[in-house]
Amino acid sequence: MNEMINEGSRISLSDLDLPKDLKELTLPQCKVLCGEIRNLLISTVSKTGGHLASNLGVVELTMAIHRNFDSPDDKIVWDVGHQAYVHKILTGRADKLSTLRQENGISGFPKPEESVHDTFISGHSTTSVSVACGIAEAMELQGRDNYTVAVIGDGAMTGGMFYEAMNNCCRKEKSNLIVILNDNNMSISKSVGSLGQYLTTLCNTEKYFDTKRKVEKNLTKVPVVGTKMAKGMKYAKDAIKSTIFERTMFEDMGFIYLGPVNGHSLTELEAVIRMAKTCHKPVFIHVKTTKGKGYLPAEKNPGEYHGISKFDIVTGNPEVSAGDSYSTTFGKELVELAEKDERICAITAAMKYGTGLQFFGKRFPERFYDVGIAEQHAVTFAGGLASMGQIPVFAVYSTFLQRSYDQLIHDVAIGKLHVVLGIDRAGIVGEDGETHQGLFDVSMLTSIPNTVIYSPSCYDELRLCMKKAIYEDKGLAAVRYPRGAENVSFNRNYISTDHVLVHGEKSDTLIITYGRIYNEAYKAQSLLEADGIHCDILKLTKIYPIAQELINEVKEYKRIVFFEEAQKNGSISSIVGDMLMERGYRGDYTRIAIDGFVKQASVASALSKLGLSCEKMADYIRRRSMTDAET
Amino acid sequence: MNEMINEGSRISLSDLDLPKDLKELTLPQCKVLCGEIRNLLISTVSKTGGHLASNLGVVELTMAIHRNFDSPDDKIVWDVGHQAYVHKILTGRADKLSTLRQENGISGFPKPEESVHDTFISGHSTTSVSVACGIAEAMELQGRDNYTVAVIGDGAMTGGMFYEAMNNCCRKEKSNLIVILNDNNMSISKSVGSLGQYLTTLCNTEKYFDTKRKVEKNLTKVPVVGTKMAKGMKYAKDAIKSTIFERTMFEDMGFIYLGPVNGHSLTELEAVIRMAKTCHKPVFIHVKTTKGKGYLPAEKNPGEYHGISKFDIVTGNPEVSAGDSYSTTFGKELVELAEKDERICAITAAMKYGTGLQFFGKRFPERFYDVGIAEQHAVTFAGGLASMGQIPVFAVYSTFLQRSYDQLIHDVAIGKLHVVLGIDRAGIVGEDGETHQGLFDVSMLTSIPNTVIYSPSCYDELRLCMKKAIYEDKGLAAVRYPRGAENVSFNRNYISTDHVLVHGEKSDTLIITYGRIYNEAYKAQSLLEADGIHCDILKLTKIYPIAQELINEVKEYKRIVFFEEAQKNGSISSIVGDMLMERGYRGDYTRIAIDGFVKQASVASALSKLGLSCEKMADYIRRRSMTDAET
Repeated sequence: MNEMINEGSRISLSDLDLPKDLKELTLPQCKVLCGEIRNLLISTVSKTGGHLASNLGVVELTMAIHRNFDSPDDKIVWDVGHQAYVHKILTGRADKLSTLRQENGISGFPKPEESVHDTFISGHSTTSVSVACGIAEAMELQGRDNYTVAVIGDGAMTGGMFYEAMNNCCRKEKSNLIVILNDNNMSISKSVGSLGQYLTTLCNTEKYFDTKRKVEKNLTKVPVVGTKMAKGMKYAKDAIKSTIFERTMFEDMGFIYLGPVNGHSLTELEAVIRMAKTCHKPVFIHVKTTKGKGYLPAEKNPGEYHGISKFDIVTGNPEVSAGDSYSTTFGKELVELAEKDERICAITAAMKYGTGLQFFGKRFPERFYDVGIAEQHAVTFAGGLASMGQIPVFAVYSTFLQRSYDQLIHDVAIGKLHVVLGIDRAGIVGEDGETHQGLFDVSMLTSIPNTVIYSPSCYDELRLCMKKAIYEDKGLAAVRYPRGAENVSFNRNYISTDHVLVHGEKSDTLIITYGRIYNEAYKAQSLLEADGIHCDILKLTKIYPIAQELINEVKEYKRIVFFEEAQKNGSISSIVGDMLMERGYRGDYTRIAIDGFVKQASVASALSKLGLSCEKMADYIRRRSMTDAET
Repeated sequence: MNEMINEGSRISLSDLDLPKDLKELTLPQCKVLCGEIRNLLISTVSKTGGHLASNLGVVELTMAIHRNFDSPDDKIVWDVGHQAYVHKILTGRADKLSTLRQENGISGFPKPEESVHDTFISGHSTTSVSVACGIAEAMELQGRDNYTVAVIGDGAMTGGMFYEAMNNCCRKEKSNLIVILNDNNMSISKSVGSLGQYLTTLCNTEKYFDTKRKVEKNLTKVPVVGTKMAKGMKYAKDAIKSTIFERTMFEDMGFIYLGPVNGHSLTELEAVIRMAKTCHKPVFIHVKTTKGKGYLPAEKNPGEYHGISKFDIVTGNPEVSAGDSYSTTFGKELVELAEKDERICAITAAMKYGTGLQFFGKRFPERFYDVGIAEQHAVTFAGGLASMGQIPVFAVYSTFLQRSYDQLIHDVAIGKLHVVLGIDRAGIVGEDGETHQGLFDVSMLTSIPNTVIYSPSCYDELRLCMKKAIYEDKGLAAVRYPRGAENVSFNRNYISTDHVLVHGEKSDTLIITYGRIYNEAYKAQSLLEADGIHCDILKLTKIYPIAQELINEVKEYKRIVFFEEAQKNGSISSIVGDMLMERGYRGDYTRIAIDGFVKQASVASALSKLGLSCEKMADYIRRRSMTDAET
């Protein structure tokens, strides 16, 4: 299509062979394309849901990157990954964008199996510099001189891995490693801690404007991509020297610091990237962007448009009001409890809204802590608070709690400190896929001595479990609950913070389960009744530890089936199996739990595929009953 | 004893009521005491083993802290904890020091249950600032104006939690939080990465000496402890201003930076601490110390005296030569393999000597990476290398691998990247106690889909397993092995990278086990033979996943006992139990595994208490057999 690219001609994504044709475009053509990309992002995410504001903020940056690097030979590593939609569009996936985050569609995060341009999987924060450091070392070992580029947001800089990685980037004399900070002064909701303050200061000092002017002035001397680099080297080096800040903390870590530059000016962006390419040392480029850029509702309220459901494009209103959820129920109940108890403190790792802690933060700012994307610190900090008699409650997504495994053991459990976890997004999360499923918290926590775990199956139980975890348990106590709203068909009288044995007609089959999918088991019981198969259900709420007496009670059943929405090894069904075996259980005990990573799909579809929907549960028990009848 | 303290009088630890009497001493008396403490440290550690060099380096610092803060009202938090021996001596535990690191003796780390002066447990690195941040917040919520002091080494600064914590310390206007950096330019062996370089630069610039002079000059104006603080405030503030560096990275993080000061000058130390106390804002004090100070063999070779066995005081020679160990066997074999394969890279997190990687580091410096105390980065960095076709091998202590749980899942397993782990110090480690036991790696790894785990029971198997993990397995493959040397009574012909079923006289009892304690099981088998009880043994080497066929084979036994040196939930014995149950096993299956934290004691004593010595194994099986005979 090269002949079609003429300055001023109408340009469209569908005409281009991406990413390579990008390099042939004029700046005016690029601007047209940026507009088209923004429209595509807004119209798509309004239908699919997803991360809008962050992607609107990196349109020009992503374009500048793909115009100045040669992916996939040069490696682009996107931190947290949810800002990679533009990258997907610019690497030939515009036509698939409508399938974003849907079953069998394209992922909301970079995925090597989806495209050669997706260097590395990423869904969790603060991994990009470590990954890029590994790739850059491999490049050197293999004698390749390609570039490795990590793009990281300012929020991700609050995670400790960033520093671990930065400390390891500069050991070689020569390195084609470039770290680009996408600074939208936001992290996920707003910048927290002194680092946010530091970045703001960097951008607001006189030096910023000096530097900006210098960049603009010097950049005319930097050769454009495509002409010989060598010719411009001397100029470039002078330009670099004059645009470097004296002693930013990034230079303290051994990087050449360039910036800050305007992340919505392709001219500035391309110039600074070209400069960085001439350094052959680790370079840190500081880019200022506006989250939500180009779509007013998102610019005005980028927090709300960070991760969003479907919405109306014209008004910007979400299609479905959020309403109550496990998260908001948790957040509101915690406020209730804290009204009566000054010891209660709440901690979040950059997920104030996601975990429902905004209510607590507003009501009790003095004992509310948003520590940034710093789950390790969050847990040890909670340990410090607990050692002084406070009652810290850390609300965290299950998948992100994985970052705190050592701290839970070393800084909480060994010292028998009373720390309460509110584990949100426990179980299948749906469209975010394998990087975000909350499937490991149960195995993690059962491996830690003296932990107590609750898994309520409705809001009322959630509230009761919180009280128990806060006031009756000692040591590490966790309450885990799923993403979204409760779904209750069952009789609300049957609730408990321990367990309920729901008798059908007295039968020889027992279903054991807990959490959200108890509702599926309840429906499965009815489906089976209709076929003349009678099952009792043991609904666990306190899922760990399991009382010995309970095992004595259930071992009378001829057949026991445990349905569990968690990773199979180390799970509760495994522990119940161990206990049954120790007690010499001779019946038929089987487990349906999760073994492997679970790809993106709606929660309902994923649960069904995993055998955890009511229909699949009923099918399974029907089959077991038939096998039994045959033998 | 106050009347006994007169300037110039002979002073001795045993005469003092510690820590409070410290404040009454003159500086010359303090110096005498420092000498006494050093002698006590050297004579004790020469007998007990332990951390010598780091403690010799903090004698004056610890004394200055206890003379200027009021423990336990003020809270002192020691990072990594192994530098807390002097603290133990100065808080009244000199007479118990001879029991250091022994069963029922005092711990080699701070432990709240041991003393009110031990604020928080610590054995892992980089937790102190998070803990102190929590304590300082609690102080404020409770309206207390006591000080919270974190003492952290320069090595610990390479861990990401340090930054997560530092980023969260400065949110309040007022805070009595003081972070003291004990900079011995060492970390555990030597400083790594750009941070080490940065600290060195701070200390070697002109500014250092300027500052030092200024501190000395201004400190005469700072009031001594005991007189009214207010009087000296103005002077102190001026002194602070003039001694602060322009823009250290610690100031970028919101701290007031004071230093560097000579950590062996009580005068300088006390002056800087008094200054810090007047700030009522987070202060960062940079103290330069010499590891091993005052004992020449340790000063000359602080790496060797970091953690040491018993040694001869005069010559400084270790009593027992280290000889071969699993670690050195691993390290040497990796060199052998890497000679023939350029793709192999080796990674350590500040444990080059501990993991036996010194050989690799020397032979292949270009593909050897000591990343600092940064286990999170280490794993993700390995993922980056693997994504480019290198074969990264991360050698790490089991207990420290806990820091990488999320990275193993998110940056290795989901992407099916081939990363090899050499898990050292797996199982009971002995004298270091509960913070260092390697008991969680099995549960951790079995919860991660598609992982392969080996647990060799001798050096030959270790070498074979390494080859398999590197060349035959895909994805995440781990080889775990214990601390110390192999202990082999069994027939070395019976080795395998998969499993060996060692038949005794054909019996109806099967022992299953793996790793180091196979040797105990082997001896137990002989003990039982003598009593006419015949057991077969299934020795697993590839411990996960377990082949279905193997379960078919073992389910013929009437009785199966699984002995396992690992945490019980999620362990291999649990998984084998699950599989047996699925196959409808009707025999007697029991498990002896570890449930809870294991305190310090020799490895032999700990294993015996846990039921994992040959005698205890034999006893257990005898008892099961008798029960059986009765029924």
